[in-house]
Amino acid sequence: MLDAFFKPQSVAVVGASRDPEKLGYAVVSNLKEAGFHGSIYPINPKADEILDFKAYPSVLDVPGSIDLAVIVIPYRFVPDVLRECGQKGVQAVVVITAGFREAGREGLEREMELVQIAKQHAFRLIGPNCLGVIDTATPLNASFAPGTPPAGPIAFMSQSGALGTAVLDIAMAGRIGFSKFVSLGNKADVSEIDLLEALADDPESKVILIYVEGVPDGQRFIEVARQVTRKKPVVAIKSGVTASGSRAVSSHTGSLAGSEAAYKAAFRQAGVIRAASMEALFDYALVFAYQPLLQGDRIGIVTNAGGPGILATDALEHAKLEIPRLKGETVEALEEYLPGAASAANPVDVLGDALADRYEHAVDLVLRDPNVDGVMVILTPQAMTEIEKTAEVVGRLAQRADKPVVGCFMGEARINAGVDILRKYGVPNYPFPERAAAALAAMSAYRRDLEHPVFEPEPCTSCIPAVRELFDKVRSEGRVSIGDLEAWEVLRAYDFPIPESRLAKTPDEAVAIAEEIGYPVVLKIASPDILHKTDVGGVKVNLDTPADVRDAFDLMVYRAGRYVPGATIWGCQVQQMVQGGREILLGMSRDPQFGPLVAFGLGGIYVEALRDVAFRVAPFSPQEAEEMICEIRSFPLLEGVRGEPPADLGAIVDALTKISRLVTDFPEILELDINPLMVFEEGRGAMAIDMRLVLASES
Amino acid sequence: MLDAFFKPQSVAVVGASRDPEKLGYAVVSNLKEAGFHGSIYPINPKADEILDFKAYPSVLDVPGSIDLAVIVIPYRFVPDVLRECGQKGVQAVVVITAGFREAGREGLEREMELVQIAKQHAFRLIGPNCLGVIDTATPLNASFAPGTPPAGPIAFMSQSGALGTAVLDIAMAGRIGFSKFVSLGNKADVSEIDLLEALADDPESKVILIYVEGVPDGQRFIEVARQVTRKKPVVAIKSGVTASGSRAVSSHTGSLAGSEAAYKAAFRQAGVIRAASMEALFDYALVFAYQPLLQGDRIGIVTNAGGPGILATDALEHAKLEIPRLKGETVEALEEYLPGAASAANPVDVLGDALADRYEHAVDLVLRDPNVDGVMVILTPQAMTEIEKTAEVVGRLAQRADKPVVGCFMGEARINAGVDILRKYGVPNYPFPERAAAALAAMSAYRRDLEHPVFEPEPCTSCIPAVRELFDKVRSEGRVSIGDLEAWEVLRAYDFPIPESRLAKTPDEAVAIAEEIGYPVVLKIASPDILHKTDVGGVKVNLDTPADVRDAFDLMVYRAGRYVPGATIWGCQVQQMVQGGREILLGMSRDPQFGPLVAFGLGGIYVEALRDVAFRVAPFSPQEAEEMICEIRSFPLLEGVRGEPPADLGAIVDALTKISRLVTDFPEILELDINPLMVFEEGRGAMAIDMRLVLASES
Repeated sequence: MLDAFFKPQSVAVVGASRDPEKLGYAVVSNLKEAGFHGSIYPINPKADEILDFKAYPSVLDVPGSIDLAVIVIPYRFVPDVLRECGQKGVQAVVVITAGFREAGREGLEREMELVQIAKQHAFRLIGPNCLGVIDTATPLNASFAPGTPPAGPIAFMSQSGALGTAVLDIAMAGRIGFSKFVSLGNKADVSEIDLLEALADDPESKVILIYVEGVPDGQRFIEVARQVTRKKPVVAIKSGVTASGSRAVSSHTGSLAGSEAAYKAAFRQAGVIRAASMEALFDYALVFAYQPLLQGDRIGIVTNAGGPGILATDALEHAKLEIPRLKGETVEALEEYLPGAASAANPVDVLGDALADRYEHAVDLVLRDPNVDGVMVILTPQAMTEIEKTAEVVGRLAQRADKPVVGCFMGEARINAGVDILRKYGVPNYPFPERAAAALAAMSAYRRDLEHPVFEPEPCTSCIPAVRELFDKVRSEGRVSIGDLEAWEVLRAYDFPIPESRLAKTPDEAVAIAEEIGYPVVLKIASPDILHKTDVGGVKVNLDTPADVRDAFDLMVYRAGRYVPGATIWGCQVQQMVQGGREILLGMSRDPQFGPLVAFGLGGIYVEALRDVAFRVAPFSPQEAEEMICEIRSFPLLEGVRGEPPADLGAIVDALTKISRLVTDFPEILELDINPLMVFEEGRGAMAIDMRLVLASES
Repeated sequence: MLDAFFKPQSVAVVGASRDPEKLGYAVVSNLKEAGFHGSIYPINPKADEILDFKAYPSVLDVPGSIDLAVIVIPYRFVPDVLRECGQKGVQAVVVITAGFREAGREGLEREMELVQIAKQHAFRLIGPNCLGVIDTATPLNASFAPGTPPAGPIAFMSQSGALGTAVLDIAMAGRIGFSKFVSLGNKADVSEIDLLEALADDPESKVILIYVEGVPDGQRFIEVARQVTRKKPVVAIKSGVTASGSRAVSSHTGSLAGSEAAYKAAFRQAGVIRAASMEALFDYALVFAYQPLLQGDRIGIVTNAGGPGILATDALEHAKLEIPRLKGETVEALEEYLPGAASAANPVDVLGDALADRYEHAVDLVLRDPNVDGVMVILTPQAMTEIEKTAEVVGRLAQRADKPVVGCFMGEARINAGVDILRKYGVPNYPFPERAAAALAAMSAYRRDLEHPVFEPEPCTSCIPAVRELFDKVRSEGRVSIGDLEAWEVLRAYDFPIPESRLAKTPDEAVAIAEEIGYPVVLKIASPDILHKTDVGGVKVNLDTPADVRDAFDLMVYRAGRYVPGATIWGCQVQQMVQGGREILLGMSRDPQFGPLVAFGLGGIYVEALRDVAFRVAPFSPQEAEEMICEIRSFPLLEGVRGEPPADLGAIVDALTKISRLVTDFPEILELDINPLMVFEEGRGAMAIDMRLVLASES
């Protein structure tokens, strides 16, 4: 799809230069040094040849066809050159030049022009304001990066070019290899989403890393990433998560940072693994790139020292992995080989005087143990330790195994040679057990995501017409807010359980309805103009007698008229009084990046004061709804405390799933609150007591 | 105090060997290679000289005096050699030999013998089962470590010798320098506590690092560490924090891991900075060792790239540091020097083409800004970046400044030369902004601890006699549990506010008391044999009339007799009914390592179901009590939500402080619960409603 960027037959560099200080020189030099097999056309009206390649005054003068053009000229010349590229039939353009969106309003206009030209001529554009593109397999280095990183199975894309240079510099030192490296810059056209799609089936990339400040189309991002992460792991670092951080983002590239809660939910739902730091990003990348996937959570530890074994145990347990008991046979075989003072239980302590042979036996046995899904090999450089030989045996065992093996060879001076050997065998080494544990935990999280059934959101076609009609009516009356009388029609359409309830226009009607429903009842003022009924004394609960109902009706109507002069009063709603159950809040608001963000929490202080809320971007699956419920800190209260029966979690899942469908079917719903949803004990369902809904005004 | 270990004039190595494969060779060789200036006496009955030093058959044969003896002989010979050392007047002994406590019960007995001998001859002992001792200033390397680490201002002590070897190997690579390195082994005699005391005034050590699995005497540890941390920062990593981790510890060195909650509280109270990983331990050490203390929380950032600037901003804010506005003058001066596209606001972006001069100006201006307490300098290796030159100017500026400067030069291949230059100037470099931010945050935490007033716990001498008398009475009756009737005497003695309450032996007496106190009242069964009164229907609240009181009395006494046959029934307690207020739980249990561990939380589900509890080890200061209150997640509920007035936090602080004093004054109190303490709105105090107390049985 984006093949012309990565596998071009010919590349033109517009702005190529003979001056080694210039970016236009660096790009041509990189293309050459990286060994690009196709044609290289430097474009420079003032030069005949650059770095031994014949130069042309413009792309139009190039005799053959051009697949990829790289632009490194001042911004004011870029539009014309793009038009020429279009004329020439160039398929892909990388604009390195800066001075666009990041430079304010005029820059943004310039950037829009580029997009316009690209659309018109049907070519794709990476940048502007970027470092360029590298594909180590082609090989192609169409960037001004200081050199080409080693090849490897990791694809990296970054919104920040500078961060890219740091990442490349790390790669240059030999510890990481890249399949593709893409600096996305301002993402005027090609974004993370396009690249994710392109890389999903790229056989050279086993894991995709993203540094992102903001994604342009949240819903599409989730949709695409959901599919890509089924095929290979995607690890992302999102910056601008704190208030100051997002201010810094918007002054940086002008991209909207979006709310942290929405990103957290979206990445979770898309199966994207979130790295909390740059270090974690690479730590995770290595294990995904070079080791088979962890098929369970049980980690065997082999160590030549007790202390680090304990640190590893702590870290693994902290990351919610398990330190299983080894099989009897394994323990026996270990005991047979190891000296008496060694520990044959997990963590297996081969003792400080262990040579490579002892490690070999122990790692082999632990790897074969069916109770073990992955192995961490810890080594401290003690007096007799055979560091390199041990790395060799561990590397060889890991290569044969279908379980992941990670190293934790601790130290630096004597250790490094061993670490290099491990790397040769594809065994990532982490200098401390905590980082090794975190990498294994990332694998476990990815595997658990793969175990989820694939989610295909579907609209509720049978529910839609009734709601559509209601919304049309509301809008035709010039309203956007919907109180609970009408809201219940919406809920009824989506098959929500709601209390019995009918509108009474007079006190007598109210009493008649109450008699039918059965006392006690609740009375609520019914008015399209009054959204916060309790504020105007518009709700009375626990009305037990006809007299109570009559009094409440009159008082409510009188007060409503006084507090909201001119309000349309339809009468009062008489409602079944729902007793018992726990109060739940379900809400939805529109996140500027991701759209419908659904919130869930326990009612009252838990949401308001303790901010104990879980979020998901709609649409989401019933399983995601379940995860969401388990995510809040006050979840134990739903499981039942102090002898209470557990709440009907299935009913909450059901309600959340219906909300997800409703807000997806009707993008015009701006905000929505069901507060409270009363949840009864297990098997007894739930009931939506009150709802508030705001539509977008038509425009 | 432990000077003979670090500054001896003469060292004997018992078990010295000519075989380079033996530890006894390594120790002599290390002493020699490290350049020890004093006398070295190899002890070996079968050798005349070892590594050019004259050897002796035993320490008794050495002509001069011996300050330090290092023992590397099989464990069965150690006791006799120790006796000889005692005879010879050796002041300090390092026992490297293993096979003691870590080897089971017999080993423990052998270890006890060593301690016995050391006591008898009044020498101190490090080990057994350790790596040895290094002092780079002396210089002395009395260990079998593979070499001597570079000198530096960091003291390191480790319970795990193997971890020590890893740490030394890191040091050998040149990134860290140590003043002292001590492998503590089984800590039969010298423990972390002794070493902390010794290192507090060591001019060569600016920061102390500890790897600890368990501390032997928790109360003394807190007491000593509290004083030491006033003088210099102590950073610790505690392993065995999770359930599996502590199982691993106890199989490792047999030291009791203690509860994580107690360690967390104790380290906090002692001012010890807790590192969550080995990596963090060294990250913090470097900034403490080489940079002036951060005197506020406002961090200026200078960067040549937007992306990493955002990551840094996120990480700093996450760590609760501030990214302040710069002074107008600073911004103006920056704007004057920097190109137009640069950002003169914090984070200051000097742009990707910044050379060293631009960094120099920006860092200098930001460092001088009175709104800034510390500076993070971020550098990505872009095309024109002058990495080494920039490191030079940053290093020179940092040396002149009285504010901490940390580097975040990102990358590896091109970056490393710059990092070496920064190190030369004492500027620690962190490869990613997150780690730099965490190091600055550790400094901030330490400074805030220094700002706390020094806490001197004092017993409540006037409160003690009444409680002593009561406890004596309880014990003389062969009881250990104290119900609330007697417990209130304890509370009264410590001046706790308690409800009016008196014991009634008959229904008539109960009515008379109720009339005096005023209705409504609470009735509670009064029996030393019934601790959980509600379980036997032994509490009735809200009794409004004489008839209610009479009925409740009879029913309660009848039931108590039926449910707990043979129970001594004193009658019923008639108690003022306390209304309103929020329920608090205060508790205390004895932690095996740290002693009286006081718990605080909101009553009911918050403690029971949500486990929202804060802990401190008594004795603690009112200020620590205040921190403890703020620590719980449900703290907003005490501040007042939904228009409620805030709770009387001062009254809770007061109650906690009194509990702290009580349980410190009476170590025989095993357990204690005040549940609930009713806390009223601000200014109205609190009241202890119910208390339960268990004494240790006399033994």
